[in-house]
Amino acid sequence: MIDTTPKDTSVLQRTAEQLTERYEGVFTPEMVERYVFESYAALGRTAKVRTYLATTAGHFADSRLRALAQSMGRIEHDRPQVLFVCVQNAGRSQLAAALLSKLAGDQVEIRSAGSLPANDLHPETKQLLDSIGVDADAYPKPLTDDVVRAADYVITMGCGDTCPIYPGKTYLDWDVEDPEGKTAAELDRVMSVLDAKVTRLWNEISAPA
Amino acid sequence: MIDTTPKDTSVLQRTAEQLTERYEGVFTPEMVERYVFESYAALGRTAKVRTYLATTAGHFADSRLRALAQSMGRIEHDRPQVLFVCVQNAGRSQLAAALLSKLAGDQVEIRSAGSLPANDLHPETKQLLDSIGVDADAYPKPLTDDVVRAADYVITMGCGDTCPIYPGKTYLDWDVEDPEGKTAAELDRVMSVLDAKVTRLWNEISAPA
Repeated sequence: MIDTTPKDTSVLQRTAEQLTERYEGVFTPEMVERYVFESYAALGRTAKVRTYLATTAGHFADSRLRALAQSMGRIEHDRPQVLFVCVQNAGRSQLAAALLSKLAGDQVEIRSAGSLPANDLHPETKQLLDSIGVDADAYPKPLTDDVVRAADYVITMGCGDTCPIYPGKTYLDWDVEDPEGKTAAELDRVMSVLDAKVTRLWNEISAPA
Repeated sequence: MIDTTPKDTSVLQRTAEQLTERYEGVFTPEMVERYVFESYAALGRTAKVRTYLATTAGHFADSRLRALAQSMGRIEHDRPQVLFVCVQNAGRSQLAAALLSKLAGDQVEIRSAGSLPANDLHPETKQLLDSIGVDADAYPKPLTDDVVRAADYVITMGCGDTCPIYPGKTYLDWDVEDPEGKTAAELDRVMSVLDAKVTRLWNEISAPA
């Protein structure tokens, strides 16, 4: 049993107030509070490290609310949105997100998610993310409807038929090996496969229409 | 990939309209729609059988909205509310819910959930539920914040520290073996342990204050 009271609950309540301010005129305070507490419950089902769970849940709720608002046209959707989905959101989807972020910087908005989020990032992933030098979104989180709605590109890796389909998006399924438990040489190969795919994707996204 | 369009999306849209009517004056149409589509995404992450996924998601969304409304005092909370939580919501929590439902009938409101919901009910569970003759809530679903808030009694079985804690509730942790893959004789023992615990719980709930 985790003790969410009183500390986590008060952090979540404060987060809900801050996000209510940020999304004033976009979402009701009640909707924002739901997002914060349900995001906490969603991460709490699987997260191993609980020290920063309330803070991470606030970040997750903010990212989801922003995605939802963009999908509804309530805040500007001014850059292409890319969503990477794998099973655990602990390896492939995190690495793809970091590689694209390094390549495209602020020119795209990038999210990642998993159908069965792991307890934590894989150790191999942490090292590789360190070497890429980007880790903004780096915690395993479940795939939600809002982030799919916001995405222009949905890239799935190994997660089969778990992803909701909406019209008007580009869906790509990438065949990339799971880096978990791989040797250094195998990891190099996985990374070079991912890197090539991400580069091709970015060329497609950034090509003049 | 599942093809949610057009069939599932239109079922979900219709469900959202029906639930909007049911919760008129309680929740905004936007909130109800979010609940329906996020409940679909949440079940879709793990559900094996997809034929009735949109229908099941409607049931799940309704149950969650009702729980939330009760926790906020917007609809009557006139009976004790019991929530059973295990890891997969495919065995113990389903069986406990069915046993209490058989014992208490309409005198309690019962929900169940799991921290890592399974793809489907365990085969053993299906047989046992058939023999109990109650299966209203019988599909694996993730633990959400709303159902914890509504509960007066939260009973956890084997799911460790994944459950949010709120004040004013009775939390019980039951030591019950997982029925998955057990022999008939072992299942008998599991069921008699569960039956005794559920009976004791019901005696406590129904005792005059």
